[in-house]
Amino acid sequence: MALVVQKYGGSSLENADRIKRVAERIVATRKAGNDVVVVCSAMGDTTDELLDLAKQVNPVPPEREMDMLLTAGERISNSLVAMAISALGAEARSFSGSQAGVITTSVHGKARIIDVTPGRVQAALDEGYIVLVAGFQGVSQDTKDITTLGRGGSDTTAVALAAALNADVCEIYTDVDGVYTADPRIVPDAKRLDRVTYEEMLEMAAGGAKVLMLRCVEYARRYGVPIHVRSSYSTKSGTIVAGSMEDLTVEQAMITGVAHDRSEAKVTVTGVPDHAGVAARIFRTVADSEIDIDMVLQNVSSTASGKTDITFTLSKSNGPTAVAALEKIREELGFSAVLYDDHIGKVSLVGAGMRSHPGVTATFCEALSKAGVNIEIINTSEIRISVLIRDTQLDEAVRAIHEAFDLGGDEQAVVYGGTGR
Amino acid sequence: MALVVQKYGGSSLENADRIKRVAERIVATRKAGNDVVVVCSAMGDTTDELLDLAKQVNPVPPEREMDMLLTAGERISNSLVAMAISALGAEARSFSGSQAGVITTSVHGKARIIDVTPGRVQAALDEGYIVLVAGFQGVSQDTKDITTLGRGGSDTTAVALAAALNADVCEIYTDVDGVYTADPRIVPDAKRLDRVTYEEMLEMAAGGAKVLMLRCVEYARRYGVPIHVRSSYSTKSGTIVAGSMEDLTVEQAMITGVAHDRSEAKVTVTGVPDHAGVAARIFRTVADSEIDIDMVLQNVSSTASGKTDITFTLSKSNGPTAVAALEKIREELGFSAVLYDDHIGKVSLVGAGMRSHPGVTATFCEALSKAGVNIEIINTSEIRISVLIRDTQLDEAVRAIHEAFDLGGDEQAVVYGGTGR
Repeated sequence: MALVVQKYGGSSLENADRIKRVAERIVATRKAGNDVVVVCSAMGDTTDELLDLAKQVNPVPPEREMDMLLTAGERISNSLVAMAISALGAEARSFSGSQAGVITTSVHGKARIIDVTPGRVQAALDEGYIVLVAGFQGVSQDTKDITTLGRGGSDTTAVALAAALNADVCEIYTDVDGVYTADPRIVPDAKRLDRVTYEEMLEMAAGGAKVLMLRCVEYARRYGVPIHVRSSYSTKSGTIVAGSMEDLTVEQAMITGVAHDRSEAKVTVTGVPDHAGVAARIFRTVADSEIDIDMVLQNVSSTASGKTDITFTLSKSNGPTAVAALEKIREELGFSAVLYDDHIGKVSLVGAGMRSHPGVTATFCEALSKAGVNIEIINTSEIRISVLIRDTQLDEAVRAIHEAFDLGGDEQAVVYGGTGR
Repeated sequence: MALVVQKYGGSSLENADRIKRVAERIVATRKAGNDVVVVCSAMGDTTDELLDLAKQVNPVPPEREMDMLLTAGERISNSLVAMAISALGAEARSFSGSQAGVITTSVHGKARIIDVTPGRVQAALDEGYIVLVAGFQGVSQDTKDITTLGRGGSDTTAVALAAALNADVCEIYTDVDGVYTADPRIVPDAKRLDRVTYEEMLEMAAGGAKVLMLRCVEYARRYGVPIHVRSSYSTKSGTIVAGSMEDLTVEQAMITGVAHDRSEAKVTVTGVPDHAGVAARIFRTVADSEIDIDMVLQNVSSTASGKTDITFTLSKSNGPTAVAALEKIREELGFSAVLYDDHIGKVSLVGAGMRSHPGVTATFCEALSKAGVNIEIINTSEIRISVLIRDTQLDEAVRAIHEAFDLGGDEQAVVYGGTGR
C-alpha cells in the first residue's frame, strides 16, 4: 500500500461541483489501495474576498490578525472536501495546519516550516481515514500563534507532509497537465516533460515558470520527495520532478526548456564612484528594505571619470521601495541618478546538458539575434542561461529559442482554464 | 480596574462599517480604564452561507466536519474586529476557542463547556492587550477536535469566560436595549427592566423570550456572573441579570413580564389504555428520538372505557420525527391515534412575587377570558404561569395579560433592526 499526498489548488475547488469532482478523484485513489493525505488551498476567490474585507476595516492590517483571518479560507475548503468525500461513502478527517503539526517560524505572512509532527495525521491514517490538511498555514513554535506560509504555501505544506510521513509521492494538481518545455500559450508545440530533476525544476522556477514555486521544489529536493505535477481535469500522467542531475546519463541530459518572466523591473544606478565599498552600500541598502535582487551587471568603469554604472533586476512590486531607498543615499554616496525601467522581460534556457555542450550559449545568442532581439544583460549558471530583453519581444524570444533547440513536440499542448500554465 | 467581557452578535458585525462601530465601543471601554475581553459571533449571514455550501456537497454532512466549517465564521469576524481595533490605535489579540482554552464535550454541533482554561487570554490581558475570543466554539477534551456549542453558543462562551476570568460583568450586546416586560413589537408600552434575577430570567427564557438563551443564564447563575443585556446601537444602560429571588424584598418582587413562544406544536395521543407503564413508554419513545418535551396534560381517564388521552408540546422542528416514532408503537401499545397541531402558541407570566400572591392565577385567567381567549393547557411553576392557546390569539393574549398586571411604562419602547427582540 502506497502513501500518496495530493494537493489541490483554489481553482480546482472554486465551487461545490468542482469540490465534488476533487472528492471523486480522492476516493478513487483510496479505492486503488493507497493511503491518502490531501492538502487543499482556499476556494477560488475566498482569499481575495477576505483581503478585501480586511482592507475595509484597516488599510494596514496587523499581520498576526491577517493570518488568523486568511487561514479560515483553507479550513472552509478542507472541511467541505471532507464532507464531499463522506457523501461518496468514504470516511475523511480534516485537520488545521496546527492540528496536523505544521510548526513554523513566527514571521506572520511568510513563515517558514521548521518541523512537521504529523502524529494526529498518522493516527487517522492508521484508523483508515482519508486525511485532509489545511494548506498554507501552521502554528509558530515560539508564540503558538497561527501563521501563514506566503506564496506557494499550500504546495510547500504538501511536500513537507509528504516528507514527514515518508510518502511515496506528492501529487500537485493544477490547471495544466505538467511541466512544459515552454509556456504553451506562447509556444503551441511546447512539449510536456515526463521527468525533470530537482535542479532543472529549480532553475525553471527561478526563470519564471510558475507551475511550481521555488521553495516547494527546494523542500522536495532536500528531503527527496518525488513530486508529480498533473492536471485536476484529466487522469493523464503529468511530469515527475525527482532525482539528481548526477544520475542522468549524458544522452538523457540536454535541454529542459525555456522559461520566461514578466514580473521583474530593472534599476540602474548611474555615475557611481568606483571606490571599494560603494557597490556594497548600494546592495546593502536594497537588502535592508527586505528586497531580493535577481540579476546584476556592473559595467567596467571608465578610467577617465572613475565612475561606473550598476544595474540590477528585482520584482516590479518592490521597485518603488528600492528607488526611494536609493534616492535617500544618493548625495552621501555621490552617484548621479537612479533609473527605473519596468518594460523588461527575462528569458531563460535551462538544461542539465549545458555543462558539457559549449555551443549552447552561442546557439542561444544567435537565435535571439536572428529574431532581432537585443540582449541587455546576460547571466548564466551551470545549467541555465538567462537574458534580459525588452518585454515587447519576450514571446518572440521564447519561440525563437524553443525552435533553435528543437524542443517542440508533435502534438498541440492542452491548456485548461484561465491561467494556462 | 474592572474586567469587562463583551459579546457582540452577528447583526452587530454584518459589514465593515458595523465592525468599525463595535471596535470604537471596545476601545472606549478600554480607554475608560477597563480590561476588555470580547466574544464575537460570525458576521451576519456567514453561518447561513457556509451551511448552504455544506448542503451542496453533502445533504447530510458529517458533524465533525460541519463544526470545522462553521467555526471559520467566528475566526473571520474576530480577526476583523481585532484589525479594526488596531486601526484605532489600540492593540488587540484574537484567539480561537481552542486557543482560549474553551474545553468541551465531544458532541459535535451541541457540545457543552466542561472547563475554561484561559491562560493565554489572561497573559495577553496582563500584557495590556484587548483580547478577542471566537465565540460558539471549543475543543473537545477527549478527541481534541474542534466543536461548536449550538444555539446561543456565543453568549455561553462569553459567560463562561467571564466566570473563568472572574470578570466584573458580562455585557451581551444585542439589537434591543434590554429585557422588556413583553415583546415591544406586540406591546408598544412594554417597559425595559433595570434588573432581573437569574430565576426570573430563566423562566422568561423558558417561556420564549429570546433575548438570552436558557443555557447561558443557567451558566451565569451557577457561577454568579452578572449579565448586562444592552444595545449595540446606543450607550444607554440596559438590563442587569443578577442576584437571587431570595434577596428580593416582598415590595420589589412582583411580576417580571410576559413571554410568548410561537415555536411549539402539540401532539395528542388518543385512546391510550389506562395501564401502568403505557404513558411512560410513550414518553420514552419520544425521548429516545432526542426530543425534549415542554408541557404535558393527561386527561382523567373515563372509567367506562378505561382509555385516556395524553397531550404534550414540543418544538415544531421535532414534530414530524415524534409523530413518526409514535406511529411505530401504536399497534403495540393499542392507542387510537396520534394527532398533530402546530397552530398553537404559548404565553407565560413570570414573576418572583407570584409565590406570595395567590390571586395571580385568577387575574391571569380572567384577563384571557375577557379577551375571548380559550385556554387549552395550563402549567405553572412557583414563579410562572404558562398556557397553551390558539396561535392566532397569541398577540391579543400577551397584550391582555400585560395590561391586567399593569406592566406598561410611560414611554414607547425603542425597537431596532429586524428582529426587535
